[in-house]
Amino acid sequence: MELLESFFSHGGEQKVFSHYSKTNSCNMKFSIFLPALQNNETVPIIWYLSGLTCNHSNVTEKGEYRKKASELGVAIICPDTSPRGEDVPDEKDNWQFGSGAGFYLDATEEPYSKNYNMYSYITSELPKIMMNHFPINENQQAIMGHSMGGHGALIIALNKPSQYASCSAFAPIVQPSSAGWSSLAFKKYLGQDKNVWRKYDATMLIEDGAKFPDFLIDQGTKDPFLDDGLRPHLLEEICKKNNQALTLRMQEGYDHSYYFISTFMSDHIEWHYNRFNL
Amino acid sequence: MELLESFFSHGGEQKVFSHYSKTNSCNMKFSIFLPALQNNETVPIIWYLSGLTCNHSNVTEKGEYRKKASELGVAIICPDTSPRGEDVPDEKDNWQFGSGAGFYLDATEEPYSKNYNMYSYITSELPKIMMNHFPINENQQAIMGHSMGGHGALIIALNKPSQYASCSAFAPIVQPSSAGWSSLAFKKYLGQDKNVWRKYDATMLIEDGAKFPDFLIDQGTKDPFLDDGLRPHLLEEICKKNNQALTLRMQEGYDHSYYFISTFMSDHIEWHYNRFNL
Repeated sequence: MELLESFFSHGGEQKVFSHYSKTNSCNMKFSIFLPALQNNETVPIIWYLSGLTCNHSNVTEKGEYRKKASELGVAIICPDTSPRGEDVPDEKDNWQFGSGAGFYLDATEEPYSKNYNMYSYITSELPKIMMNHFPINENQQAIMGHSMGGHGALIIALNKPSQYASCSAFAPIVQPSSAGWSSLAFKKYLGQDKNVWRKYDATMLIEDGAKFPDFLIDQGTKDPFLDDGLRPHLLEEICKKNNQALTLRMQEGYDHSYYFISTFMSDHIEWHYNRFNL
Repeated sequence: MELLESFFSHGGEQKVFSHYSKTNSCNMKFSIFLPALQNNETVPIIWYLSGLTCNHSNVTEKGEYRKKASELGVAIICPDTSPRGEDVPDEKDNWQFGSGAGFYLDATEEPYSKNYNMYSYITSELPKIMMNHFPINENQQAIMGHSMGGHGALIIALNKPSQYASCSAFAPIVQPSSAGWSSLAFKKYLGQDKNVWRKYDATMLIEDGAKFPDFLIDQGTKDPFLDDGLRPHLLEEICKKNNQALTLRMQEGYDHSYYFISTFMSDHIEWHYNRFNL
């Protein structure tokens, strides 16, 4: 692991690291915020998964999470959204596929299956690295994300409910199998068999019986992607039908930007903190 | 005036405008955050002046000022740091002069005097535009800034103490006349006569008898520019000698970045709020 950046901020330390990922067969970057620590103390960790076109830096710079994380004594990790590099297959002109668009799944199709394994990277490889290198309490993890990263948080929590104490999302893609900006990527990463896609689609996981204690979702009413790509009502309907708890808050006038995310970031961190077993 | 961007954020609205500046003979951009307003209400305003290489957007995205400004009901305006455009003389490869480096002075030398009039722009032209277009209480203004913008805030408050209720700075250039990264710019903008420079140098203004109620200054101890460009001890010494109040806080471990600024932003907004006559 290589330390790329380190800053004092809000009483803690904001760092950026690079490391080789076996799962993705390439170097990956992530940022981590660590609050001030007592000797031998371990802290809970919240995973923040970013959206299409982003990397670790967008939310690290604009997310406004450090003040609350520092107050509550929580670490925040912000991974990248896909594998990257000269040896990683990509479609340079397509922002909905390839670099910046890993969709938090494990690709099965050539030539993507060697590198595009963000699901295993986020749920297995990177957690082990966290526990080995940082004073993290591995039994107190939560997961959240925005847009494509909101999708990632939902499907990861539904697939691995025992690994995460809580889950929340800003403007998540709730049904990527059928949304215009994700279904084409699913086909390229996972092939034609839509049964394989269900593991990576929150609405279908719930339909298939997956459960999670509760989800907090904030969604702006002026989000330009609301009716086409995001469609929170699809999740709402399926949660109702399947007795899955959901706290969906429609936020009047807000859009899809970091100005929206940063507004409700403290609420989400508190939501997670209150669900840790500390 | 043209509205370029508008976002709901933290209960208020973050906007970016472009307008033609007569003072600078070019188009200028600024951002303004307006908290939620009651009918016919006017709000106090805090001017935030940015540092070298920045424009309005850096602090708007990374400054973390909206939550506190919204809570207290304060508007925040973030102007650009210089005139810009094809017709504005510049030295493209010099980040310490020209675009992004207006130093908040009125240039007297050719070919800069037509455009580089940031002092008059910030203290006279832009305040009038604010009052004409936004529900601002013109009797309740405060000014703050970072680095070159900290210098700007200090010299503006010292030159116009009746116009500003309070002044603060993050890591200001306290003696630009003698600092390596500003003295060459002063020579180009203002000519050889160092008496002319004194109006734009906080330490010399105080030496010449200028007064302001108090300054809040935060300075990181790990700031790479501390000993060379910033030198807060020079201000401290001159304030002591001239009975000028100064609240200088050396912040252990912090550097010159927005991770530092955002950490202490709420403190500064509260400092200003407590000095408004509301």
